[in-house]
Amino acid sequence: MFHLYWADEGGVPAGDRGLAYGDGLFETMSVTGDRPPLLAYHLDRLSRDAGRLAIPAARSELEKVCSQALARYSGHYGARPWVLKLTLTRGSGGRGYRPEPGIQPNLVISHSTAPAPADTDGVVVDFSRVPLTVNPLFAGIKSLNRLEQVMAARELRGEIYEVLMSNRDGHVVEGTRTNLFVRSGDAWITPPSATLAVAGVMRRYVLDRLHTAGEEVREAPLSLVDLVGERCQGLWLTNSVLGVVSVRNLAGHDLPVDQRLATIVGSPAILD
Amino acid sequence: MFHLYWADEGGVPAGDRGLAYGDGLFETMSVTGDRPPLLAYHLDRLSRDAGRLAIPAARSELEKVCSQALARYSGHYGARPWVLKLTLTRGSGGRGYRPEPGIQPNLVISHSTAPAPADTDGVVVDFSRVPLTVNPLFAGIKSLNRLEQVMAARELRGEIYEVLMSNRDGHVVEGTRTNLFVRSGDAWITPPSATLAVAGVMRRYVLDRLHTAGEEVREAPLSLVDLVGERCQGLWLTNSVLGVVSVRNLAGHDLPVDQRLATIVGSPAILD
Repeated sequence: MFHLYWADEGGVPAGDRGLAYGDGLFETMSVTGDRPPLLAYHLDRLSRDAGRLAIPAARSELEKVCSQALARYSGHYGARPWVLKLTLTRGSGGRGYRPEPGIQPNLVISHSTAPAPADTDGVVVDFSRVPLTVNPLFAGIKSLNRLEQVMAARELRGEIYEVLMSNRDGHVVEGTRTNLFVRSGDAWITPPSATLAVAGVMRRYVLDRLHTAGEEVREAPLSLVDLVGERCQGLWLTNSVLGVVSVRNLAGHDLPVDQRLATIVGSPAILD
Repeated sequence: MFHLYWADEGGVPAGDRGLAYGDGLFETMSVTGDRPPLLAYHLDRLSRDAGRLAIPAARSELEKVCSQALARYSGHYGARPWVLKLTLTRGSGGRGYRPEPGIQPNLVISHSTAPAPADTDGVVVDFSRVPLTVNPLFAGIKSLNRLEQVMAARELRGEIYEVLMSNRDGHVVEGTRTNLFVRSGDAWITPPSATLAVAGVMRRYVLDRLHTAGEEVREAPLSLVDLVGERCQGLWLTNSVLGVVSVRNLAGHDLPVDQRLATIVGSPAILD
Protein backbone atom coordinates (compact mmCIF):
# COMPACT_ATOMS: atom_id res chain seq x y z
CA MET A 1 0.00 0.00 0.00
CA PHE A 2 2.91 2.36 0.77
CA HIS A 3 6.49 2.46 -0.43
CA LEU A 4 8.27 2.39 2.93
CA TYR A 5 11.48 4.31 3.48
CA TRP A 6 13.30 3.84 6.78
CA ALA A 7 15.31 7.02 7.20
CA ASP A 8 18.17 5.19 8.94
CA GLU A 9 18.59 2.89 5.95
CA GLY A 10 18.97 5.45 3.16
CA GLY A 11 17.44 8.24 1.17
CA VAL A 12 14.12 8.91 -0.48
CA PRO A 13 13.49 9.11 -4.25
CA ALA A 14 14.59 12.42 -5.78
CA GLY A 15 11.26 12.54 -7.64
CA ASP A 16 9.17 12.35 -4.47
CA ARG A 17 6.31 14.83 -4.56
CA GLY A 18 6.77 15.65 -0.90
CA LEU A 19 10.13 17.13 -1.80
CA ALA A 20 8.95 18.66 -5.07
CA TYR A 21 5.82 20.40 -3.79
CA GLY A 22 5.30 19.64 -0.12
CA ASP A 23 2.65 17.24 -1.43
CA GLY A 24 2.12 15.24 1.73
CA LEU A 25 1.65 15.28 5.51
CA PHE A 26 3.50 14.30 8.65
CA GLU A 27 3.04 13.26 12.25
CA THR A 28 5.49 13.40 15.13
CA MET A 29 4.52 11.21 18.06
CA SER A 30 5.84 11.19 21.56
CA VAL A 31 6.77 7.66 22.61
CA THR A 32 7.92 6.08 25.86
CA GLY A 33 9.16 2.55 25.39
CA ASP A 34 6.96 1.22 22.61
CA ARG A 35 3.86 3.22 23.61
CA PRO A 36 2.81 6.45 21.87
CA PRO A 37 0.00 7.53 24.25
CA LEU A 38 -1.76 9.59 21.60
CA LEU A 39 -1.37 7.03 18.81
CA ALA A 40 -5.11 6.84 18.13
CA TYR A 41 -5.32 10.63 17.75
CA HIS A 42 -2.34 10.69 15.38
CA LEU A 43 -3.73 7.88 13.24
CA ASP A 44 -7.14 9.56 13.14
CA ARG A 45 -5.69 12.86 12.00
CA LEU A 46 -3.25 11.43 9.48
CA SER A 47 -5.77 9.16 7.77
CA ARG A 48 -8.50 11.83 7.76
CA ASP A 49 -6.28 14.62 6.44
CA ALA A 50 -4.65 12.35 3.85
CA GLY A 51 -8.20 11.80 2.63
CA ARG A 52 -8.73 15.57 2.40
CA LEU A 53 -5.68 15.70 0.11
CA ALA A 54 -6.87 12.64 -1.84
CA ILE A 55 -3.80 10.64 -0.75
CA PRO A 56 -4.91 7.05 -0.12
CA ALA A 57 -3.85 5.98 3.39
CA ALA A 58 -6.02 3.56 5.31
CA ARG A 59 -5.82 3.96 9.08
CA SER A 60 -5.29 0.22 9.54
CA GLU A 61 -2.28 0.23 7.20
CA LEU A 62 -0.77 3.23 8.96
CA GLU A 63 -1.27 1.47 12.26
CA LYS A 64 0.60 -1.60 11.00
CA VAL A 65 3.56 0.54 9.98
CA CYS A 66 3.55 2.22 13.39
CA SER A 67 3.68 -1.18 15.09
CA GLN A 68 6.68 -2.15 12.96
CA ALA A 69 8.41 1.14 13.74
CA LEU A 70 7.73 0.89 17.47
CA ALA A 71 9.10 -2.66 17.57
CA ARG A 72 12.13 -1.60 15.58
CA TYR A 73 13.17 1.49 17.52
CA SER A 74 11.87 1.25 21.09
CA GLY A 75 14.93 -0.77 22.12
CA HIS A 76 17.20 2.13 21.18
CA TYR A 77 15.79 4.38 23.88
CA GLY A 78 15.03 2.20 26.90
CA ALA A 79 12.95 4.25 29.33
CA ARG A 80 13.90 7.58 27.70
CA PRO A 81 11.14 9.34 25.76
CA TRP A 82 11.61 9.52 22.01
CA VAL A 83 9.82 10.79 18.94
CA LEU A 84 8.53 8.74 16.03
CA LYS A 85 7.98 10.67 12.81
CA LEU A 86 5.91 9.57 9.83
CA THR A 87 6.09 11.53 6.58
CA LEU A 88 3.43 10.48 4.10
CA THR A 89 3.71 11.83 0.55
CA ARG A 90 1.54 11.35 -2.51
CA GLY A 91 4.39 9.35 -4.07
CA SER A 92 6.77 9.87 -6.94
CA GLY A 93 5.98 11.12 -10.40
CA GLY A 94 3.35 12.95 -12.33
CA ARG A 95 3.75 15.71 -14.87
CA GLY A 96 4.45 18.85 -12.89
CA TYR A 97 1.91 19.71 -10.23
CA ARG A 98 -0.67 17.35 -11.63
CA PRO A 99 -0.37 13.97 -9.88
CA GLU A 100 -0.38 10.81 -11.95
CA PRO A 101 -3.54 8.88 -11.08
CA GLY A 102 -3.00 5.74 -9.06
CA ILE A 103 0.54 6.41 -7.83
CA GLN A 104 1.49 4.71 -4.60
CA PRO A 105 2.20 6.95 -1.59
CA ASN A 106 5.64 7.04 0.00
CA LEU A 107 5.92 6.72 3.76
CA VAL A 108 9.16 7.81 5.41
CA ILE A 109 9.80 6.68 8.99
CA SER A 110 12.33 8.32 11.24
CA HIS A 111 13.01 8.68 14.95
CA SER A 112 14.85 11.01 17.31
CA THR A 113 15.33 11.70 21.00
CA ALA A 114 12.58 13.73 22.64
CA PRO A 115 13.27 17.42 23.33
CA ALA A 116 13.83 18.51 26.93
CA PRO A 117 10.58 19.34 28.76
CA ALA A 118 9.66 23.01 29.15
CA ASP A 119 10.17 24.85 32.43
CA THR A 120 7.13 24.14 34.64
CA ASP A 121 7.37 27.74 35.94
CA GLY A 122 6.31 28.85 32.47
CA VAL A 123 8.04 29.99 29.32
CA VAL A 124 8.69 33.29 27.58
CA VAL A 125 6.86 33.91 24.32
CA ASP A 126 6.85 36.69 21.75
CA PHE A 127 4.85 37.66 18.68
CA SER A 128 6.16 36.54 15.29
CA ARG A 129 6.75 38.98 12.46
CA VAL A 130 5.78 36.27 9.97
CA PRO A 131 2.09 36.53 9.08
CA LEU A 132 0.10 33.30 9.05
CA THR A 133 -1.92 32.56 5.91
CA VAL A 134 -4.28 29.62 5.99
CA ASN A 135 -5.98 28.29 2.89
CA PRO A 136 -9.47 27.36 4.12
CA LEU A 137 -9.30 24.17 2.06
CA PHE A 138 -6.26 22.95 4.00
CA ALA A 139 -7.04 24.44 7.42
CA GLY A 140 -5.60 22.34 10.21
CA ILE A 141 -3.76 19.86 7.96
CA LYS A 142 -0.23 19.10 9.12
CA SER A 143 0.95 19.17 5.52
CA LEU A 144 4.54 19.45 4.33
CA ASN A 145 3.94 23.11 3.34
CA ARG A 146 5.51 24.63 6.44
CA LEU A 147 7.69 27.46 5.15
CA GLU A 148 5.84 30.01 7.30
CA GLN A 149 6.57 28.00 10.43
CA VAL A 150 10.23 27.57 9.42
CA MET A 151 10.71 31.30 8.88
CA ALA A 152 8.91 32.11 12.13
CA ALA A 153 11.00 29.53 14.01
CA ARG A 154 14.12 31.44 12.97
CA GLU A 155 12.89 34.11 15.40
CA LEU A 156 13.31 31.73 18.36
CA ARG A 157 16.40 33.02 20.14
CA GLY A 158 17.69 33.12 23.70
CA GLU A 159 14.87 32.46 26.14
CA ILE A 160 12.09 32.93 23.55
CA TYR A 161 10.47 29.49 23.61
CA GLU A 162 7.80 30.15 21.03
CA VAL A 163 6.47 32.94 18.79
CA LEU A 164 2.77 33.46 18.13
CA MET A 165 1.56 33.97 14.58
CA SER A 166 -1.37 36.18 13.58
CA ASN A 167 -3.53 36.10 10.50
CA ARG A 168 -4.67 38.87 8.20
CA ASP A 169 -7.75 39.47 10.37
CA GLY A 170 -5.43 40.40 13.23
CA HIS A 171 -6.27 37.27 15.20
CA VAL A 172 -3.56 35.43 17.11
CA VAL A 173 -3.88 31.88 15.80
CA GLU A 174 -1.07 29.62 16.95
CA GLY A 175 2.63 29.22 17.64
CA THR A 176 5.13 27.80 15.18
CA ARG A 177 4.67 24.32 16.68
CA THR A 178 1.93 24.81 19.26
CA ASN A 179 -1.78 25.56 19.58
CA LEU A 180 -3.12 28.03 22.12
CA PHE A 181 -5.50 27.89 25.06
CA VAL A 182 -6.48 30.97 27.05
CA ARG A 183 -8.32 31.08 30.36
CA SER A 184 -10.73 34.00 30.21
CA GLY A 185 -13.46 34.61 32.80
CA ASP A 186 -15.05 31.23 33.43
CA ALA A 187 -14.12 29.71 30.08
CA TRP A 188 -11.28 28.21 28.08
CA ILE A 189 -10.82 29.74 24.65
CA THR A 190 -8.93 28.27 21.70
CA PRO A 191 -8.94 29.53 18.11
CA PRO A 192 -11.45 27.76 15.82
CA SER A 193 -10.31 24.77 13.75
CA ALA A 194 -11.22 26.50 10.50
CA THR A 195 -8.63 29.21 11.17
CA LEU A 196 -5.71 26.95 12.10
CA ALA A 197 -2.67 26.14 10.04
CA VAL A 198 -2.13 22.97 12.10
CA ALA A 199 -4.85 21.49 14.29
CA GLY A 200 -2.64 19.74 16.82
CA VAL A 201 -3.31 16.31 18.20
CA MET A 202 -2.65 17.65 21.70
CA ARG A 203 -5.20 20.44 21.09
CA ARG A 204 -7.77 17.75 20.29
CA TYR A 205 -6.80 15.77 23.37
CA VAL A 206 -7.00 18.84 25.63
CA LEU A 207 -10.44 19.73 24.20
CA ASP A 208 -11.64 16.18 24.90
CA ARG A 209 -10.35 16.34 28.47
CA LEU A 210 -11.92 19.76 29.09
CA HIS A 211 -15.27 18.55 27.81
CA THR A 212 -15.05 15.40 29.92
CA ALA A 213 -14.28 17.55 32.96
CA GLY A 214 -17.40 19.64 32.26
CA GLU A 215 -15.42 22.80 31.65
CA GLU A 216 -16.80 25.63 29.52
CA VAL A 217 -14.84 25.78 26.26
CA ARG A 218 -15.23 28.23 23.41
CA GLU A 219 -13.63 27.96 19.99
CA ALA A 220 -13.31 31.63 19.15
CA PRO A 221 -10.77 33.93 17.49
CA LEU A 222 -8.22 35.43 19.89
CA SER A 223 -7.27 39.05 19.68
CA LEU A 224 -4.39 40.75 21.41
CA VAL A 225 -6.57 41.98 24.25
CA ASP A 226 -7.67 38.40 25.01
CA LEU A 227 -4.03 37.58 25.68
CA VAL A 228 -2.68 40.63 27.46
CA GLY A 229 -5.91 42.21 28.77
CA GLU A 230 -7.29 42.01 32.31
CA ARG A 231 -9.58 39.06 31.64
CA CYS A 232 -6.67 36.78 30.70
CA GLN A 233 -6.04 34.36 33.55
CA GLY A 234 -3.45 32.36 31.73
CA LEU A 235 -2.11 31.25 28.36
CA TRP A 236 -1.00 27.73 27.48
CA LEU A 237 0.78 26.21 24.50
CA THR A 238 -0.05 22.65 23.47
CA ASN A 239 1.95 20.20 21.39
CA SER A 240 1.84 16.41 21.40
CA VAL A 241 5.56 16.11 22.11
CA LEU A 242 5.94 19.11 24.45
CA GLY A 243 2.63 18.61 26.25
CA VAL A 244 0.84 21.53 27.96
CA VAL A 245 3.19 24.47 28.55
CA SER A 246 2.32 27.57 30.64
CA VAL A 247 3.34 30.97 29.34
CA ARG A 248 4.69 33.26 32.05
CA ASN A 249 5.57 36.20 29.85
CA LEU A 250 4.19 37.27 26.48
CA ALA A 251 6.10 40.03 24.70
CA GLY A 252 7.06 41.65 28.00
CA HIS A 253 3.66 41.19 29.69
CA ASP A 254 3.67 38.93 32.72
CA LEU A 255 0.87 36.38 32.73
CA PRO A 256 -0.48 34.37 35.66
CA VAL A 257 0.85 30.82 35.77
CA ASP A 258 -0.96 27.95 37.41
CA GLN A 259 -1.26 24.20 37.02
CA ARG A 260 -5.00 24.25 36.42
CA LEU A 261 -4.95 23.13 32.79
CA ALA A 262 -2.15 20.64 33.33
CA THR A 263 -4.15 19.14 36.19
CA ILE A 264 -7.34 18.79 34.14
CA VAL A 265 -5.47 17.35 31.18
CA GLY A 266 -3.29 15.03 33.23
CA SER A 267 -0.60 12.99 31.61
CA PRO A 268 -1.71 11.33 28.39
CA ALA A 269 0.93 8.69 29.05
CA ILE A 270 -1.03 7.62 32.12
CA LEU A 271 -4.56 8.34 31.01
CA ASP A 272 -4.45 6.70 27.62
CA MET B 1 28.88 25.23 -1.34
CA PHE B 2 25.99 22.84 -2.12
CA HIS B 3 25.54 19.14 -1.54
CA LEU B 4 24.75 18.06 -5.11
CA TYR B 5 22.27 15.26 -5.80
CA TRP B 6 21.89 14.08 -9.39
CA ALA B 7 18.41 12.59 -9.53
CA ASP B 8 19.46 9.92 -12.04
CA GLU B 9 22.13 8.64 -9.64
CA GLY B 10 20.06 8.07 -6.52
CA GLY B 11 17.91 9.51 -3.80
CA VAL B 12 18.06 12.50 -1.51
CA PRO B 13 18.59 12.40 2.26
CA ALA B 14 15.46 11.45 4.21
CA GLY B 15 16.19 14.34 6.59
CA ASP B 16 16.17 16.97 3.83
CA ARG B 17 14.22 20.04 4.89
CA GLY B 18 12.74 20.41 1.43
CA LEU B 19 10.91 17.14 2.02
CA ALA B 20 10.17 17.85 5.68
CA TYR B 21 8.74 21.35 5.31
CA GLY B 22 8.95 22.49 1.69
CA ASP B 23 11.91 24.51 2.95
CA GLY B 24 13.42 25.39 -0.42
CA LEU B 25 12.82 26.60 -3.98
CA PHE B 26 12.96 25.27 -7.51
CA GLU B 27 13.43 26.29 -11.13
CA THR B 28 12.41 24.48 -14.28
CA MET B 29 14.19 25.72 -17.38
CA SER B 30 13.41 25.12 -20.99
CA VAL B 31 16.53 23.96 -22.85
CA THR B 32 17.33 23.27 -26.48
CA GLY B 33 20.67 21.55 -26.94
CA ASP B 34 22.76 23.00 -24.14
CA ARG B 35 21.15 26.45 -24.18
CA PRO B 36 18.46 27.53 -21.70
CA PRO B 37 17.45 30.85 -23.32
CA LEU B 38 16.17 32.31 -20.05
CA LEU B 39 19.07 31.07 -17.92
CA ALA B 40 19.97 34.55 -16.67
CA TYR B 41 16.37 35.15 -15.55
CA HIS B 42 16.25 31.81 -13.75
CA LEU B 43 19.56 32.40 -11.98
CA ASP B 44 18.49 35.90 -10.99
CA ARG B 45 15.24 34.69 -9.49
CA LEU B 46 16.67 31.64 -7.75
CA SER B 47 19.56 33.48 -6.10
CA ARG B 48 17.40 36.46 -5.12
CA ASP B 49 14.54 34.40 -3.67
CA ALA B 50 16.94 32.02 -1.88
CA GLY B 51 18.24 35.19 -0.21
CA ARG B 52 14.70 36.12 0.84
CA LEU B 53 14.48 32.72 2.57
CA ALA B 54 17.97 33.12 4.05
CA ILE B 55 19.25 30.10 2.08
CA PRO B 56 22.81 30.85 0.96
CA ALA B 57 23.09 30.38 -2.82
CA ALA B 58 25.47 32.56 -4.79
CA ARG B 59 24.40 33.14 -8.38
CA SER B 60 27.88 32.25 -9.64
CA GLU B 61 27.78 28.87 -7.88
CA LEU B 62 24.33 28.11 -9.24
CA GLU B 63 25.58 29.03 -12.71
CA LYS B 64 28.48 26.56 -12.39
CA VAL B 65 26.10 23.76 -11.49
CA CYS B 66 23.88 24.64 -14.46
CA SER B 67 26.88 24.42 -16.78
CA GLN B 68 27.73 20.98 -15.42
CA ALA B 69 24.11 19.84 -15.82
CA LEU B 70 23.84 21.19 -19.37
CA ALA B 71 27.06 19.44 -20.38
CA ARG B 72 25.88 16.24 -18.75
CA TYR B 73 22.37 15.99 -20.20
CA SER B 74 22.22 17.92 -23.48
CA GLY B 75 23.53 14.88 -25.41
CA HIS B 76 20.49 12.85 -24.29
CA TYR B 77 18.08 15.02 -26.23
CA GLY B 78 19.81 16.07 -29.45
CA ALA B 79 17.72 18.81 -31.03
CA ARG B 80 14.61 17.99 -28.98
CA PRO B 81 13.67 20.53 -26.29
CA TRP B 82 14.06 19.37 -22.70
CA VAL B 83 13.62 20.68 -19.20
CA LEU B 84 16.31 21.11 -16.56
CA LYS B 85 15.08 21.27 -13.01
CA LEU B 86 16.97 22.57 -9.98
CA THR B 87 15.59 22.01 -6.49
CA LEU B 88 17.44 23.98 -3.84
CA THR B 89 16.69 23.18 -0.20
CA ARG B 90 18.00 24.64 3.03
CA GLY B 91 19.77 21.33 3.65
CA SER B 92 19.36 18.52 6.15
CA GLY B 93 18.86 18.78 9.87
CA GLY B 94 17.81 21.17 12.55
CA ARG B 95 15.49 20.63 15.48
CA GLY B 96 12.00 20.74 14.06
CA TYR B 97 11.11 23.82 12.07
CA ARG B 98 14.06 25.79 13.38
CA PRO B 99 17.00 25.39 10.99
CA GLU B 100 20.42 24.62 12.38
CA PRO B 101 22.65 27.61 11.70
CA GLY B 102 25.30 27.09 9.04
CA ILE B 103 23.88 23.99 7.38
CA GLN B 104 24.83 23.48 3.75
CA PRO B 105 22.03 23.64 1.17
CA ASN B 106 21.13 20.61 -0.92
CA LEU B 107 20.78 21.03 -4.68
CA VAL B 108 18.92 18.32 -6.59
CA ILE B 109 19.31 18.26 -10.38
CA SER B 110 16.93 16.42 -12.67
CA HIS B 111 15.84 16.52 -16.29
CA SER B 112 12.88 15.50 -18.43
CA THR B 113 11.52 15.82 -21.93
CA ALA B 114 9.69 19.08 -22.66
CA PRO B 115 5.88 19.00 -22.71
CA ALA B 116 4.12 19.28 -26.08
CA PRO B 117 3.54 22.89 -27.14
CA ALA B 118 0.05 24.32 -26.65
CA ASP B 119 -2.39 24.69 -29.53
CA THR B 120 -1.60 27.99 -31.30
CA ASP B 121 -5.35 28.46 -31.91
CA GLY B 122 -5.68 28.95 -28.17
CA VAL B 123 -6.53 26.80 -25.19
CA VAL B 124 -9.54 26.24 -22.96
CA VAL B 125 -9.30 27.47 -19.39
CA ASP B 126 -11.57 27.33 -16.36
CA PHE B 127 -11.67 28.80 -12.87
CA SER B 128 -10.24 26.73 -10.04
CA ARG B 129 -12.23 25.92 -6.94
CA VAL B 130 -9.02 26.04 -4.89
CA PRO B 131 -8.53 29.48 -3.36
CA LEU B 132 -5.07 31.01 -3.62
CA THR B 133 -3.50 32.28 -0.40
CA VAL B 134 -0.29 34.22 -0.65
CA ASN B 135 1.79 35.11 2.38
CA PRO B 136 3.04 38.64 1.60
CA LEU B 137 6.47 37.68 2.93
CA PHE B 138 6.85 34.96 0.31
CA ALA B 139 4.95 36.55 -2.58
CA GLY B 140 6.31 35.44 -5.93
CA ILE B 141 8.80 32.90 -4.54
CA LYS B 142 8.79 29.59 -6.41
CA SER B 143 9.14 27.75 -3.12
CA LEU B 144 8.50 24.07 -2.51
CA ASN B 145 5.21 24.92 -0.74
CA ARG B 146 2.95 24.17 -3.70
CA LEU B 147 0.08 22.16 -2.27
CA GLU B 148 -2.48 24.68 -3.54
CA GLN B 149 -1.17 24.32 -7.08
CA VAL B 150 -1.16 20.52 -6.79
CA MET B 151 -4.76 20.41 -5.63
CA ALA B 152 -5.83 22.90 -8.31
CA ALA B 153 -3.95 20.90 -10.99
CA ARG B 154 -6.14 17.91 -10.13
CA GLU B 155 -8.96 19.91 -11.74
CA LEU B 156 -7.21 19.76 -15.15
CA ARG B 157 -9.26 17.26 -17.11
CA GLY B 158 -10.14 16.71 -20.73
CA GLU B 159 -9.47 19.84 -22.75
CA ILE B 160 -9.05 22.10 -19.71
CA TYR B 161 -5.46 23.27 -20.16
CA GLU B 162 -5.25 25.45 -17.08
CA VAL B 163 -7.37 26.66 -14.17
CA LEU B 164 -7.17 30.20 -12.81
CA MET B 165 -6.89 30.75 -9.09
CA SER B 166 -8.41 33.68 -7.20
CA ASN B 167 -7.47 35.17 -3.87
CA ARG B 168 -9.61 36.18 -0.93
CA ASP B 169 -10.06 39.67 -2.39
CA GLY B 170 -11.81 38.10 -5.34
CA HIS B 171 -8.96 38.88 -7.73
CA VAL B 172 -7.93 36.40 -10.37
CA VAL B 173 -4.20 36.02 -9.75
CA GLU B 174 -2.63 33.23 -11.78
CA GLY B 175 -2.95 29.71 -13.14
CA THR B 176 -1.54 26.63 -11.46
CA ARG B 177 1.66 26.94 -13.51
CA THR B 178 1.18 30.16 -15.46
CA ASN B 179 0.98 33.92 -14.99
CA LEU B 180 -1.65 36.02 -16.73
CA PHE B 181 -1.63 38.90 -19.22
CA VAL B 182 -4.81 40.62 -20.38
CA ARG B 183 -5.17 43.05 -23.26
CA SER B 184 -7.62 45.74 -22.14
CA GLY B 185 -8.22 48.96 -24.05
CA ASP B 186 -4.77 50.23 -25.04
CA ALA B 187 -2.88 48.47 -22.28
CA TRP B 188 -1.55 45.15 -21.11
CA ILE B 189 -2.51 44.21 -17.58
CA THR B 190 -0.90 41.63 -15.34
CA PRO B 191 -1.51 41.09 -11.61
CA PRO B 192 1.00 42.86 -9.31
CA SER B 193 4.09 40.99 -8.08
CA ALA B 194 3.10 41.47 -4.45
CA THR B 195 -0.07 39.41 -5.00
CA LEU B 196 1.51 36.48 -6.83
CA ALA B 197 2.17 33.00 -5.50
CA VAL B 198 4.82 32.50 -8.21
CA ALA B 199 6.33 35.39 -10.16
CA GLY B 200 7.24 33.51 -13.32
CA VAL B 201 10.46 34.00 -15.23
CA MET B 202 8.45 34.20 -18.46
CA ARG B 203 6.26 36.91 -16.90
CA ARG B 204 9.40 38.93 -16.20
CA TYR B 205 10.67 38.33 -19.74
CA VAL B 206 7.32 39.34 -21.27
CA LEU B 207 7.24 42.51 -19.15
CA ASP B 208 10.76 43.38 -20.31
CA ARG B 209 9.79 42.84 -23.95
CA LEU B 210 6.61 44.90 -23.62
CA HIS B 211 8.53 47.76 -22.04
CA THR B 212 11.21 47.58 -24.73
CA ALA B 213 8.48 47.68 -27.40
CA GLY B 214 7.05 50.86 -25.81
CA GLU B 215 3.78 49.18 -24.91
CA GLU B 216 1.60 50.46 -22.07
CA VAL B 217 1.70 47.95 -19.22
CA ARG B 218 -0.15 48.08 -15.93
CA GLU B 219 0.45 45.82 -12.95
CA ALA B 220 -3.03 45.80 -11.46
CA PRO B 221 -5.39 43.30 -9.84
CA LEU B 222 -7.65 41.47 -12.29
CA SER B 223 -11.30 40.98 -11.54
CA LEU B 224 -13.70 38.70 -13.36
CA VAL B 225 -15.03 41.55 -15.50
CA ASP B 226 -11.50 42.31 -16.76
CA LEU B 227 -11.40 38.79 -18.17
CA VAL B 228 -14.88 38.21 -19.53
CA GLY B 229 -16.12 41.80 -19.95
CA GLU B 230 -16.30 43.81 -23.17
CA ARG B 231 -12.96 45.53 -22.72
CA CYS B 232 -11.04 42.23 -22.74
CA GLN B 233 -9.26 41.87 -26.07
CA GLY B 234 -7.42 38.74 -25.12
CA LEU B 235 -5.99 36.65 -22.32
CA TRP B 236 -2.60 34.96 -22.33
CA LEU B 237 -0.89 32.47 -20.05
CA THR B 238 2.87 32.63 -19.61
CA ASN B 239 5.30 29.97 -18.42
CA SER B 240 9.00 29.62 -19.15
CA VAL B 241 8.59 26.10 -20.51
CA LEU B 242 5.22 26.55 -22.26
CA GLY B 243 5.92 30.06 -23.55
CA VAL B 244 3.07 32.48 -24.32
CA VAL B 245 -0.26 30.68 -24.70
CA SER B 246 -3.48 32.31 -25.98
CA VAL B 247 -6.74 31.50 -24.23
CA ARG B 248 -9.65 31.00 -26.62
CA ASN B 249 -12.27 30.08 -24.08
CA LEU B 250 -12.53 30.90 -20.39
CA ALA B 251 -15.20 29.04 -18.44
CA GLY B 252 -17.49 28.96 -21.47
CA HIS B 253 -16.79 32.55 -22.62
CA ASP B 254 -15.11 32.81 -26.00
CA LEU B 255 -12.19 35.23 -26.04
CA PRO B 256 -10.52 36.86 -29.04
CA VAL B 257 -7.28 35.14 -30.07
CA ASP B 258 -4.49 36.88 -31.92
CA GLN B 259 -0.73 36.61 -32.21
CA ARG B 260 -0.08 40.14 -30.99
CA LEU B 261 1.60 39.25 -27.69
CA ALA B 262 3.50 36.32 -29.18
CA THR B 263 4.80 38.64 -31.90
CA ILE B 264 5.98 41.30 -29.46
CA VAL B 265 7.57 38.74 -27.19
CA GLY B 266 9.14 36.73 -29.99
CA SER B 267 10.94 33.52 -29.26
CA PRO B 268 13.26 33.78 -26.28
CA ALA B 269 15.30 31.01 -27.86
CA ILE B 270 16.13 33.36 -30.73
CA LEU B 271 16.20 36.68 -28.94
CA ASP B 272 18.35 35.76 -26.00
